[in-house]
Amino acid sequence: MISKRQIKIITSLHQKKYRKSTGLFVAEGKKVIQEFLDSSFELDTLFTTDEFLFEENVDATLVSEAELKKVSFLKTPNKALALFKIHEATFSQQKGLIVVLDAIRDPGNLGTIIRLCDWFGVKQLVCSETTVDCYNPKVIQATMGSLTRVEVVYTDLSTYLSETNLPIFGAFMDGTNVYKTNLPKDGILVMGNEANGVSEEISTFITEKIAIPRFGDFQQTESLNVAMATGILLNEFKRMEFT
Amino acid sequence: MISKRQIKIITSLHQKKYRKSTGLFVAEGKKVIQEFLDSSFELDTLFTTDEFLFEENVDATLVSEAELKKVSFLKTPNKALALFKIHEATFSQQKGLIVVLDAIRDPGNLGTIIRLCDWFGVKQLVCSETTVDCYNPKVIQATMGSLTRVEVVYTDLSTYLSETNLPIFGAFMDGTNVYKTNLPKDGILVMGNEANGVSEEISTFITEKIAIPRFGDFQQTESLNVAMATGILLNEFKRMEFT
Repeated sequence: MISKRQIKIITSLHQKKYRKSTGLFVAEGKKVIQEFLDSSFELDTLFTTDEFLFEENVDATLVSEAELKKVSFLKTPNKALALFKIHEATFSQQKGLIVVLDAIRDPGNLGTIIRLCDWFGVKQLVCSETTVDCYNPKVIQATMGSLTRVEVVYTDLSTYLSETNLPIFGAFMDGTNVYKTNLPKDGILVMGNEANGVSEEISTFITEKIAIPRFGDFQQTESLNVAMATGILLNEFKRMEFT
Repeated sequence: MISKRQIKIITSLHQKKYRKSTGLFVAEGKKVIQEFLDSSFELDTLFTTDEFLFEENVDATLVSEAELKKVSFLKTPNKALALFKIHEATFSQQKGLIVVLDAIRDPGNLGTIIRLCDWFGVKQLVCSETTVDCYNPKVIQATMGSLTRVEVVYTDLSTYLSETNLPIFGAFMDGTNVYKTNLPKDGILVMGNEANGVSEEISTFITEKIAIPRFGDFQQTESLNVAMATGILLNEFKRMEFT
């Protein structure tokens, strides 16, 4: 059973301020929860409608589907909901490829970018304070557990970028053709806001502006979605290791 | 004003069978509608809440916001809704790069793939009959007008693939590293269903299975979303033209 107090806490966690004050976030569904259970994240509470969903040594509270529906953030609740403790992210990496996000607002985009970092072996994602919170329930569900393998840090980007010795690449519509750019193994890739791209302030730190060439005849085509552009650019950086 | 009969027709158009019987589809919002107006697509009816939204020579019916809300497929109706005539797509292309979709079900994925084709200059998209309809309202909105520049044909893929002389590449989790594959200028790229990949039947036509390498330590990472994989692979094909 889920107590009234627990219901109140869980539903409050869609708001960043309550995630901050409680130090908790929500993960839903067997697959996502299992990834967090298998990681260094610490479980706080686990509710499930199916007592055989997780291994015996996992401490779970059995609840009804109606109860789960009351607290779930999903349209179709997915058999289990867990609260995990937010962990303090660290600047773990000084070399390799690091992705920096300047004011990404859409949870789906951030979730996709975290998955891409995981796929391409990027361990460190540095976000501006204006980027959507990675513990937002929509981000957690979109990452499919990749958050357990990518260190996401929120910080003042100007300070961070002014202190690094790594070359800083940024995605710009009018940047240099990325195919003709020499991409190093150690470097930073800055991706900008969905509507406005990289901000003026952050632009001053960019050592090389890069762009994905457009091949269509027509110039009206909207720019690529930021998550798509991140995927293509990460592929460009990482393919160098093979060629 | 929108007549009762018109309301009935418009709301029916979220169903494929009514799009087929009427030969009409819905586009919403100034940007998307303008792209169709500027193309060879023929306008049937245009409703707008703002008489100055389009040029004077465009025949529009002024409606109230409440009326627009009644017929709109969007959560937040966007000032205009238009009906255009579906046009008969043709096999326009025998060379260059052609994308083939085997049972893509998600409208958002198809919309993103159509935008990607537009970006990378792919003019022909060939879909299995089991692929979501490109005139589905969600696809139309996701394409942002790119459908005016990409020819989308629905056909029996086995027949189509058995008749082509082009090399046929397919995306498979266990394919050859795409970075080490020689990608030609003229060829076909087959992308498979979200859950199951390329079907067994279609697999028999593939001349080369390719894969995007995974760089993360952990093997649990979900496969890349099909639209993301399409973007990265199209980039791989097209970058050859520069290098």
